[in-house]
Amino acid sequence: MALLSLVGAGPGDPELITLKAIRALENADVILYDALANEKLLDHASTKAIKKFVGKRYGCHALSQEEINILILEYASSYRHVLRLKGGDPFVFGRAQEEINIARQAGIEVEIIPGISSALAVPAMQMIPLTNRGIAESFWVTTGTTRSGEISGDIKLAAQSSATVIILMAMSRLEGIMDIFKQYGKQDTPVAIIQNGTTDEEKCVIGSVKDIAFKAEVAGMANPAIIVVGEVVRLHPSLLRDIQDHQTVRYSMKQVIGPLG
Amino acid sequence: MALLSLVGAGPGDPELITLKAIRALENADVILYDALANEKLLDHASTKAIKKFVGKRYGCHALSQEEINILILEYASSYRHVLRLKGGDPFVFGRAQEEINIARQAGIEVEIIPGISSALAVPAMQMIPLTNRGIAESFWVTTGTTRSGEISGDIKLAAQSSATVIILMAMSRLEGIMDIFKQYGKQDTPVAIIQNGTTDEEKCVIGSVKDIAFKAEVAGMANPAIIVVGEVVRLHPSLLRDIQDHQTVRYSMKQVIGPLG
Repeated sequence: MALLSLVGAGPGDPELITLKAIRALENADVILYDALANEKLLDHASTKAIKKFVGKRYGCHALSQEEINILILEYASSYRHVLRLKGGDPFVFGRAQEEINIARQAGIEVEIIPGISSALAVPAMQMIPLTNRGIAESFWVTTGTTRSGEISGDIKLAAQSSATVIILMAMSRLEGIMDIFKQYGKQDTPVAIIQNGTTDEEKCVIGSVKDIAFKAEVAGMANPAIIVVGEVVRLHPSLLRDIQDHQTVRYSMKQVIGPLG
Repeated sequence: MALLSLVGAGPGDPELITLKAIRALENADVILYDALANEKLLDHASTKAIKKFVGKRYGCHALSQEEINILILEYASSYRHVLRLKGGDPFVFGRAQEEINIARQAGIEVEIIPGISSALAVPAMQMIPLTNRGIAESFWVTTGTTRSGEISGDIKLAAQSSATVIILMAMSRLEGIMDIFKQYGKQDTPVAIIQNGTTDEEKCVIGSVKDIAFKAEVAGMANPAIIVVGEVVRLHPSLLRDIQDHQTVRYSMKQVIGPLG
């Protein structure tokens, strides 16, 4: 029986992959990888393995989910171990379930290997904790939009909560989402936007609910980016007065723009 | 200048640690590790490294956060590289900020190495996705309680949302938390509780908001456990009718008790 491994590639830094994922990469006969998976990870694979790019990138033609599903079935009929390498964690906005269902229906064994989600690791590498005793006791990860592309009603609940709110793939909706936080009196809540987190192209803009859309536009911020809304953003090293020399804190930063005044 | 690395040990399975964490373990002179970190991970460390257990376990005396802070400073004054190995991810309920602050004040360089959070990986290894197109567009991770130990007001917001709600370390508050979900008409929403996830002692109980507290009591479920509330729980293999033979799905399961009728 063929095996389909759905493997999390982590947030971008090729060292933020698990040992379990590396062992699966070493073992796989076929690797189907997304745009968000770092291609350096393919170095762990056997030289004999088939490595096929199936993601969207730079506006080029990309395979649809249906085409990926068909590829999985085709390869699994001829090879023992097919591996789907997906950016971040396969179960966090990864559409993993569609691939699991198609494999199950064909009698293919399925395993999940969790990855480091960019929703958690990208703020962490900027030294922004998602929870902090007395500041934020929970965190909420969302795309901010529903399947139809509208801003989710859940944002109204998030804006009333004490949770750190992490919003993925939402740069085109930034202003509308910030408007909802303003309606709930959060205009001064700090916000960080991190683009290309954990990679050499990392860029971070910091502001507050009332001015972050303007600052992000000026800085030319775009997806892939992570928006963090919450009091924990005040713990970002650029906002801490006790740090005289930023070199005393080793944090992932190529460019940080516009700390709060 | 000494370096303090705050390193995520992952959810329990010793292969769910990152390559970056392994390299830090190999390099460290001193390793201070928690109860939730798998001791097998210490095999990556140098034989010369000092390895000190600082966590709580089996009711034995544990070091307070203040005692851990003092140890960090003491070791960092004599050794080049001190590593704090923390279960899961250091920035998810990990009290990392207190250790960062104490190090910064002493001029010790600090780095964060994210880990696989049990909040995400434990449901994943049970094949429960946290998000799924058309079923759950977001997820909310909480302990369900405030610093003073009361049930957080945020649970009322979570119960009204479409988010998958993941509640950590909350077994003693299970009934009270489920009562809030009932108040918002969620009595039939499925719930999974996973104890000792990703380890050989893993145990999972599945029910719904209205009966999970009873089922968990009968099964003797206790912390460390993760409670998952949301429609995505219906994707657990034990609840899917199309799976004739559970062996076709390789998922982390030692014991699964009481699927929905």
